[in-house]
Parts: sequence; C-alpha cells; structure tokens
Amino acid sequence: MLKPDVKMELVAIVGSDRYVDQPEVLTCYSYDSFAEEAMPEAVIFPLTTEEVAEVMRIASREKIPVTARGAGTSVCGGPVPVQHGIVLCFSKMNKILSINTRDRHAVVQPGVVNLDLQKALAPHGFFFPPDPGSMNFSTIGGNVSHNAGGPRCLKYGVTVDYVLGMQVVLASGKVVRFGSKNIKDVTGYNFSALYCGSEGTLGLVTEIILRVVPRPETMQTLLVTFDSLDNTARAVSDIIGSGILPAAMELMDKMTINAIEDAVGIGLPREAEGTLLIEVDGTTEACSRERQQIVAKVQEHGAVTIEEACTEEDRNRLWTARRAAYGVFAKISPNIVSEDVTVPVSRVPEMIRKIVEITDRYGLKAGVLAHAGDGNMHPLVCTDRENHEEWQRVEKAFAEIFQAAADMEGTLSGEHGIGLAKAEYLPLVMDQDTRDFMALIKHAVDPDNILNPGKFV
Amino acid sequence: MLKPDVKMELVAIVGSDRYVDQPEVLTCYSYDSFAEEAMPEAVIFPLTTEEVAEVMRIASREKIPVTARGAGTSVCGGPVPVQHGIVLCFSKMNKILSINTRDRHAVVQPGVVNLDLQKALAPHGFFFPPDPGSMNFSTIGGNVSHNAGGPRCLKYGVTVDYVLGMQVVLASGKVVRFGSKNIKDVTGYNFSALYCGSEGTLGLVTEIILRVVPRPETMQTLLVTFDSLDNTARAVSDIIGSGILPAAMELMDKMTINAIEDAVGIGLPREAEGTLLIEVDGTTEACSRERQQIVAKVQEHGAVTIEEACTEEDRNRLWTARRAAYGVFAKISPNIVSEDVTVPVSRVPEMIRKIVEITDRYGLKAGVLAHAGDGNMHPLVCTDRENHEEWQRVEKAFAEIFQAAADMEGTLSGEHGIGLAKAEYLPLVMDQDTRDFMALIKHAVDPDNILNPGKFV
Repeated sequence: MLKPDVKMELVAIVGSDRYVDQPEVLTCYSYDSFAEEAMPEAVIFPLTTEEVAEVMRIASREKIPVTARGAGTSVCGGPVPVQHGIVLCFSKMNKILSINTRDRHAVVQPGVVNLDLQKALAPHGFFFPPDPGSMNFSTIGGNVSHNAGGPRCLKYGVTVDYVLGMQVVLASGKVVRFGSKNIKDVTGYNFSALYCGSEGTLGLVTEIILRVVPRPETMQTLLVTFDSLDNTARAVSDIIGSGILPAAMELMDKMTINAIEDAVGIGLPREAEGTLLIEVDGTTEACSRERQQIVAKVQEHGAVTIEEACTEEDRNRLWTARRAAYGVFAKISPNIVSEDVTVPVSRVPEMIRKIVEITDRYGLKAGVLAHAGDGNMHPLVCTDRENHEEWQRVEKAFAEIFQAAADMEGTLSGEHGIGLAKAEYLPLVMDQDTRDFMALIKHAVDPDNILNPGKFV
Repeated sequence: MLKPDVKMELVAIVGSDRYVDQPEVLTCYSYDSFAEEAMPEAVIFPLTTEEVAEVMRIASREKIPVTARGAGTSVCGGPVPVQHGIVLCFSKMNKILSINTRDRHAVVQPGVVNLDLQKALAPHGFFFPPDPGSMNFSTIGGNVSHNAGGPRCLKYGVTVDYVLGMQVVLASGKVVRFGSKNIKDVTGYNFSALYCGSEGTLGLVTEIILRVVPRPETMQTLLVTFDSLDNTARAVSDIIGSGILPAAMELMDKMTINAIEDAVGIGLPREAEGTLLIEVDGTTEACSRERQQIVAKVQEHGAVTIEEACTEEDRNRLWTARRAAYGVFAKISPNIVSEDVTVPVSRVPEMIRKIVEITDRYGLKAGVLAHAGDGNMHPLVCTDRENHEEWQRVEKAFAEIFQAAADMEGTLSGEHGIGLAKAEYLPLVMDQDTRDFMALIKHAVDPDNILNPGKFV
C-alpha cells in the first residue's frame, strides 16, 4: 500500500474508480504469461497522457517504481512489478485516434488491442503486419514495448518496422515526442526505434503513430508434412536460402501437432514427424508462382503430403490451429515454458536437432514450434513448477539451449523480450561493455530507476 | 595542429603514412557536399577497430574533437569538423568481410562504397536496397550515420531497415556490439537503430551487419509526362493513396528535366511541366499488372506521354539521367542548395505548389526533384553564396519552406540529415523537452562532447 497522502494525490488525478488497491484486485496485476509473481501496491488506469505525466511527477518525487502493463500477455515477465509500487495499466487508453490510408498511418493509444486495430483497418483494405500469437488480446503498447513479431513478420518485419513515431512520458513526468507521420524522417535521434523493445524501462508510451500497409490481393496457404523433423528443417533453410520469401513459414513437430489435434480435432496430420504451415501473399499470379517454387522445394526434401487451403475457411482453420498451440499445451500440463531463441536460418536444422537432443537428455516433455523461416524457435516444455526436481532439469535444459543458440551466432530472444525471464543469460550474447552501455543509458534516462526496475537492465 | 606529443602518440598507432596534417591535404577534409568549411588539425585513416579505439582513448584523454568521415558526400555538413581536432576518415576500412545470402546478411567495414557492395552482391542475385543519389561514391558508414534513403526506399525502406547490428567505438575508446546476424533480435536495447542517423555524434561505427535481399525478378520503368506540375503531384498522391506501391516514383519539374537534358542530351521531354520516373519490380506478372494500374492512374490525371523503358539499356539511361540531376545543377551555378523536406504523401501537391510559390516570390532559380512517392522533396536552388543579397533570399525562402512542411505535419529531413545545415530549424518540428532529451542522451554517451561537436545536438 502506498502512503495515504500519496494515494490521495494519485486519486485526485484519476479519480477513485481508476485507482485500485484492494489486494484481491492487485493479485490480477501481479503476473503475466510468464510464471513469476509480484504484488503491486496500486494499479492506476490512466485515460490521457496528461494523467500519466501527473502520476509520473508524483512517482518521481516519491521514487515509487512504475511498471506499465497492457493485456499482460507478455511471456518474459515484462509487466511483473518485481519492486512493487504502481502498475500503470493502459487498458482504458484504447482509442484508435485516426486512420489515414492515403498517407498509410494510424495513430493509436497504447491500450488498443492488436485485433481491434486489424478490424478497424480491414474495411480500408489495410492491415498492421505484426501478428504475435497473442494478437487477439495483446495491446499495441505491449507490442511496441516488446517489439513483438509473429508468423508474418518473416516477410513483413517486426513491430519496430511499423512505428513511425510516439509520444512518451519520461520518468520525470516530462512529455516528449519522437518521429512523425512521415514514412521517411531523419530529423534528430531515432528514439522511436530505441523505445521499441525497451520493455517500459525508459518511459511510458502514451500514443503511437503506426505505419499501416495495403492488404495483399491474395493469400495462399499450404500444409506440408514430412517423415522427419530434420527434412522439415532442411526444407525451411533451403527455401529461404534460395531467395523465396513466403509471408509465413511455421514449423510444428509431431508432439505439437498432436496436442493441437487432441484439443481442436480438425484433421491435422498426426503421423507426420514435422509439419510446415506456409503462406504466400501478393498478387494472384505471384502467389501461384511462389507456391509452385515452394512445392518443388518441399518435394526435393521428401514432403509426404502437401495440402492446399482452398477456401478462406480452410485457411482460417489452419491458422486457428496454429494459434491455438500455446493454449493447448497449457491445458496438458500445469506450466508451459515457451522459449524464443533465434538463429540464422541456415542453422535451423542444427538448432532443432540440438533442442531435441537436450530436452530428451533431460527427460522433458517438449515440443518444437518455430517461425522457422526467420530462424525464430519456440521450444515448448510442459512442466510443473511445483515439481522442484523437474524444474531444475527444465532450467538446465534451457541454459544449454541458450548456449547452443549463442554458439550458432543466434540470440536469446527474437520477439518475446528479455524481461525477467532471460536477464541472467544476457552475458551469453552481450559482453560486459555493451551491458554497461545499456545501464548507462538507462541511468541517464531514469536516474532513480523507477521505470520497471529489476528487469534486464 | 595537434600538440607534438599527442601527434607522436597517434602516429605510433597508425603509422606516419596514415596520419596527415599538411595544410594542403587537410583542406580536402574541411568540407563535404554542403557548403561550409572548417579545417581539421589532423586526418587519421584507421584500418582496424582497435586503431579507432586507441585513437579515441587519446582523444578522450586530451578532449580532442573527433569527426568521422566516409566519402564526404553528405549534404548536411555531417562530416565538417566545425570544432577542428581529428577527422577519422574511414576510406581505408573498406573491406566486405562476409556475404552470406543463405542467411541474407553481409558484414562490412564502414568505408565500403555502396556501389561496391552492390557489385559484390549482384553475382549472388542479391542487393542492398538503400540507393542514395551518391551511391556510386558514398560509403556504407556514411549511409548508416545519415540513415540514407534513395529512390527505391519508397518500397524498400531506408538504411535503418537493413542494419541488423554493428560494432561501435564509444567516446571513451570502449568497443561495444549491438544487434546480431539474426533477422529478429529483441535482446537488449535497439541501439543499432538509434545509431542509424546519429551522424557520428554518439560513437564511431567500425563494422556493420547488413540485411541484404534477393533481387526482384523483373524491373519495369516508365517515364510519364504531364502538362502541369500540379497534375503530376496529384497522380503521385493518388497512386500511393490507392494502395499501389512502386519501387520508386521520382518527380522532376521542367527546369530539372531541361537542366539534365542540356547536360546529357538523351531525349528527355523538354516541354513537359512535370515528369514522373516510375519503377515497379517483382515477378514479371506482378510488374505487368502494377504497371497497368499505374498507367490507368496517370491517364486519369492527364498524362501526356507514357514511355516505357523496354530494354535494360533504356532503363539505365533514364536512371543515369535522374542520378545526374545534382551534378547537372552544380554546373549551371556556383552553388546548388538541395533541400530535403518531407510531408505525408497526400500533401505532396500542396507542398510542391508552396515550394514554387515561395521560390518564385523570392526570385530564385529553383527546380523540384522529389522521391515523390514517399513525400520526400528536394527543392533545388541555384545560387551563388558570394552574392550576399541573393543568399539572404535563399535562406529566407528555405525558412518558409521548412515552416510550410512543419505546418503540413512534415519534417525537416527525410534522408539527408540535420548536421549543420538544419540544426537551427529543429524547433519547428521538435519541442524543447524533446531537444533536451536528445542533449541528455548525447551528454550521457559523450560527456566531454568530443564526438562530432557543434552539430544538431
């Protein structure tokens, strides 16, 4: 609980209905989709940038930690308030302020749900490419602060590639604006890009100017199965290496396919050792040609079946199945740990072999799900955190997986972020001087360390 | 001249052949393609990151200003050493360290010339999209530090969109590494993007990991003329607004076309009030369709002639003409000032009218050249800086042009940078708190202000 006089000041800013400190409600804001928990002392739901600025002026004066939160779908512990203090929940700042398809931008508040933006853009024939697994729930503010990816980021790039500008409230309560509505803008430092992926440690993003793009004319989707996971991975590496760029190329192993099929029963190929869900988009002619090239490549690598989603319904069915993967795993074990290592795509076959070898060796129930085309892999481990002995094996296995990724010039996270989850592993891919430089910038921007303290920096 | 003992230490690092302080040579490093001049006290040509680090350790101890330089093609005064000291010229650090098309990256030293990288990538069927007007001479280090654009950035994005990672020597001489060879990487702060466009004020980039992409199968190029500049601009805004995305869409006014034609005489349409050079790329089928859509749109806007470049030779001829524009203007007057304002593309017609109105009102000889599809305009003014009265009119005209861009939610620079040229105009598009924030970061990174001091921050 915050001090009574501080609480009174904060309530004066947002009103008592948007200041919450009943323990049973605070609990709901103590965790995200990662497993650790920490109780905030208050949750505040701002409606305007000015309210955020006023809250920060008090937090700064009182040195109260402030952790931003969207929908809480982060899988790295990003919004977990490990040093307590205030959670600033942006769920009520959820207005789409403008959509301008002539100039290809949209201006949104951070609490806008990704799917709601997609729905608003669709009638204009436009879309916002980042499509994290959580897109039906996660907010644009969360997408920005974690620099979210998703399947179609293979072709389209990640969130930072679509952020033109933003308004940010600094730790001091000062309000700054980065970037503009211009597609090209080199006026001053590129702070918008720095803030993408900074996980709320450098400021609070209260308005975002996004670049939006026309929907492709056609999307064509293929489901390809293989009789070995290795062939599956080689096909991926060969397709990308040969210069083809599908919109998405998702790899699922046998366990993942079966877990999905158990849950949703839509006729996925249970026998296949490896499955690729591949989507191409663009003009109809270009799609057809690209699809043919892909079919030829997967056949070279011993594809067993190649199914084409002929209707929009078929396509949605396949993508719904893919998107269901996390939920499905969550149902079959008390905890599910989804990792996010990334390697250069030519190393995908080697990395997948390594993941299987490591999780087998530690006797873990694990699946492999990957945005394989960009080398971004999500090994999934089913576990129970209460089982101390097993949890130790999980931790050891992941430490080895991270080391393997680092050894292949890979990285710890392609899209989930570092947060709490992987802070301790940073030295595997980042030397001391570079980590010191991160700390230097953090200290310059937030000298009292009140912005999401206790995380990766 | 630097102090003899300091000179001796620096010579010990790079050898006397790569330490230059003869006045007649220093003069060559006192200016760029912008007009101001300032003499360095020494020019050093490093070969390795370690040499750069050693130089910086001495510069830091002695508080000597250090200004990075590539080919000196900057048009904003970026590499002009306004506070003298050392110019670190990267022209000898010009090795392409690796090209890996399977993983779609290349690792280069900063002194690699853009064109040389393109030549090295071409046999692999790949290219590096940023193509600034200076690409035949300018270096990747310069492209990165100014976040360079170019015609095809309309479709492909600017330099920052192709920088995966970099090695940087900080003011202190410490060496840090940002990013990785992975297409997706959210491990730690996105410093690579911050350093793109930072104009050498935050550190010295000594190695760059670039994303490279497969060359499109086909490129088709159209030259379209109009009988009014306004129709030309409206066609641009309508094509982009309707969801078509050409690879490039360059606008030239009558004066520009005639200046080019005077110089190179390749049969450009001298009578046209406005000309568009439009390129589409992709699969042959997609190109053909997009070209048809564009032809329909330009006809709606009263296109007078539509010429297609049928051969690669024709295409090269048109692009050579377009790229010649700066040089051509430079020949017809003692000085040529090329500006770089950008506005959202729907405002292009309005902005062009404004540019014409302002330059006419001040009695200036001016042309309009624009990467029109992304709203990035280069008004060109022919002048003579020695003519004090005229120069005052030039300055007044540009001040009004900048204000007009700001009023249209535009920005001061789309690709040239701020440097010396536009530092004083920053307040038009950036408030005090945001400028203070830039200064705060600069001070944290470079507390003695030795990295390219006296520029925009």
